[in-house]
Amino acid sequence: MRSDTDTKDLAILADSHANRDLLWATGFSVGDPVPYFEARGRRYLVVSDLEIGRARKQAKVHGVLPLTKYMKRLKRRGLEKPTLADVLAEVLVERRVKAVRVPHDFPVYAADRLRQAKVRVLPCLPPFFPARMVKTKAEIAAIRDAIARTVSAVREGIDLIRRSKPVRGVLRLDGAALTSERVRGAIEIAGLERGLVPTETIVAGGEQAVDPHDCGSGPLRAGYPIILDVFPRDAKTGYHADITRTVFRGRPALKVRALYDAVRAAHAAAIAKVRAGIEAKEVHQAVLDVFRERGMETGPDGKGGMQGFFHGTGHGLGLSVHEPPRVGAVADPLPENSVITIEPGLYYPGLGGVRHEDDVVVRSGGAENLVDFDIGFDL
Amino acid sequence: MRSDTDTKDLAILADSHANRDLLWATGFSVGDPVPYFEARGRRYLVVSDLEIGRARKQAKVHGVLPLTKYMKRLKRRGLEKPTLADVLAEVLVERRVKAVRVPHDFPVYAADRLRQAKVRVLPCLPPFFPARMVKTKAEIAAIRDAIARTVSAVREGIDLIRRSKPVRGVLRLDGAALTSERVRGAIEIAGLERGLVPTETIVAGGEQAVDPHDCGSGPLRAGYPIILDVFPRDAKTGYHADITRTVFRGRPALKVRALYDAVRAAHAAAIAKVRAGIEAKEVHQAVLDVFRERGMETGPDGKGGMQGFFHGTGHGLGLSVHEPPRVGAVADPLPENSVITIEPGLYYPGLGGVRHEDDVVVRSGGAENLVDFDIGFDL
Repeated sequence: MRSDTDTKDLAILADSHANRDLLWATGFSVGDPVPYFEARGRRYLVVSDLEIGRARKQAKVHGVLPLTKYMKRLKRRGLEKPTLADVLAEVLVERRVKAVRVPHDFPVYAADRLRQAKVRVLPCLPPFFPARMVKTKAEIAAIRDAIARTVSAVREGIDLIRRSKPVRGVLRLDGAALTSERVRGAIEIAGLERGLVPTETIVAGGEQAVDPHDCGSGPLRAGYPIILDVFPRDAKTGYHADITRTVFRGRPALKVRALYDAVRAAHAAAIAKVRAGIEAKEVHQAVLDVFRERGMETGPDGKGGMQGFFHGTGHGLGLSVHEPPRVGAVADPLPENSVITIEPGLYYPGLGGVRHEDDVVVRSGGAENLVDFDIGFDL
Repeated sequence: MRSDTDTKDLAILADSHANRDLLWATGFSVGDPVPYFEARGRRYLVVSDLEIGRARKQAKVHGVLPLTKYMKRLKRRGLEKPTLADVLAEVLVERRVKAVRVPHDFPVYAADRLRQAKVRVLPCLPPFFPARMVKTKAEIAAIRDAIARTVSAVREGIDLIRRSKPVRGVLRLDGAALTSERVRGAIEIAGLERGLVPTETIVAGGEQAVDPHDCGSGPLRAGYPIILDVFPRDAKTGYHADITRTVFRGRPALKVRALYDAVRAAHAAAIAKVRAGIEAKEVHQAVLDVFRERGMETGPDGKGGMQGFFHGTGHGLGLSVHEPPRVGAVADPLPENSVITIEPGLYYPGLGGVRHEDDVVVRSGGAENLVDFDIGFDL
């Protein structure tokens, strides 16, 4: 008799575009939610008629169960509109599964339904599949490949900025203002041509760059750093790259240069700390130390926002742009062969924002940087 | 004293890229999960330092609460790693909220945490915000605009097919095989140039098109219908278009033409049925009737998949590609001013697949078709 609480059985009810654990576990790309479960070491998907042919060809599971069969059975039993949760409860009870681990964001309606059917539901905080943090050689190759093509696409955007001229405080190129949208378009189109699906590409200058999640819009201003943060997904493999560069056109402001130098120094210090088994907070602390030594203060900006350095140092990278491990003020050790970003940044109203981001493999001997992309700051 | 079960208070814990209800309710685009709640008719977001400046500028809510404040408070109280669920429980208890409606896919770990804090959690099946089904004039204009640009992008892809020549069973253009990838690239790049974010664009011919969710790959075969199903998101407004056209190059097969004619007839019959208040299943039945009359049978294809017509007739369209109302075998009435797709299809191994999809506004007097895009089948 297995213990309920250390059950290895598990269930997911999600689509694999959103739930990348499901994609990782099954290799099956599906845009609508599907019940997935593991029972006694065997893995199953329940799919609609619409997906069943493709699932049988593509999904790395032991069994593909037809949703229609269970829907019909439940309707015969008097359920007018059976839900996917009813079906999941049915297949688990059918297999005498007494308890399942589920992702922390497993749908509550399905959890309630399973509990009603006397199946224990044990939510797990991420990582749901800790093994997903440790990348295989093939996964690292896929990420490296996505990065190389991303670098090549970002060069197209930077080329526009390099060719632009500051005119009365605004960058101009070929007779028109050079906008965030134009640079983003150049990068995303170059990415598509290279098999990369664009995400929320950031091309932000001026005060917009002070907000790390502002994607940027309108004419780019001279004399302010321009942040390019690009994290597309490889259309074939599903793996992401994630790189950030900050560039500058126009008359240099001394303080802006100091920001850039501080960010590069913090970035180098963090990368120097990375090795398998080190606690994430030690890497994060290396960034904080450099900023403190250089007098780069963090705190409220007086307008309801924050200034200085107020995000994590990095995050895991793979089938998701953001995935475990976190590289922040947490004690979790960095797993060997995980892939993480290192992306310190500084943001001050009136000066702008600077961020620099590479992706590295965590090795026993230190960080292996997957990004080979050296450009100057002052173009 | 308000009754618990008909509470109007509600909570969401999600990111608004995935959870479009949250985007609809707040107008705030955010890629990481944020607690959102409505209490006594007032709407609140809890956001990290990273988002707080932008949230205060952009979010249509009564209050933006700083996550940091609650994290600090919970840590002082001895929680080592407070979660967003801990924070949501804290803000609800602080406001003496006794019960909340939540989306059906609200995270179970947060539901468990709220219940532990004696807040009742009432999961609701979609639509969570029924009002979201009814589009405003501005929303309809945004969808219409996205459709016009999508049509223009799809024309670029169809132009490649039109200019191609069948050579030994395969389409060729400019000295190379014309592949699904080339046509998809042309459509997605043209879309990006028009401000559209590409999604999983389908360009599928031959046997691939028999599986309605196969995106298509490799050389396009002559003599088989080619399905182009394109549903990008407008980068600015966030609204989707969703159109499908099926085209054909090479020697026509009589049976393929019959499939196409049946799909167009079913499409027209369904659109003719659409009006505010009609039950969705009546529209769906119109499609089934046409296919039955024309002898287009539905059932197992003998290879583990299905053949014939085995998906819904359509779905709501807006900030999500798929959203309520469903247009299938359900009794729910179609709301006035909802926007739905009408997309019957037929799929037979050996013949290929044909699907035709328009987006229409459900009006009291009938369907208002938002798509103006007439091309022939046999190019």
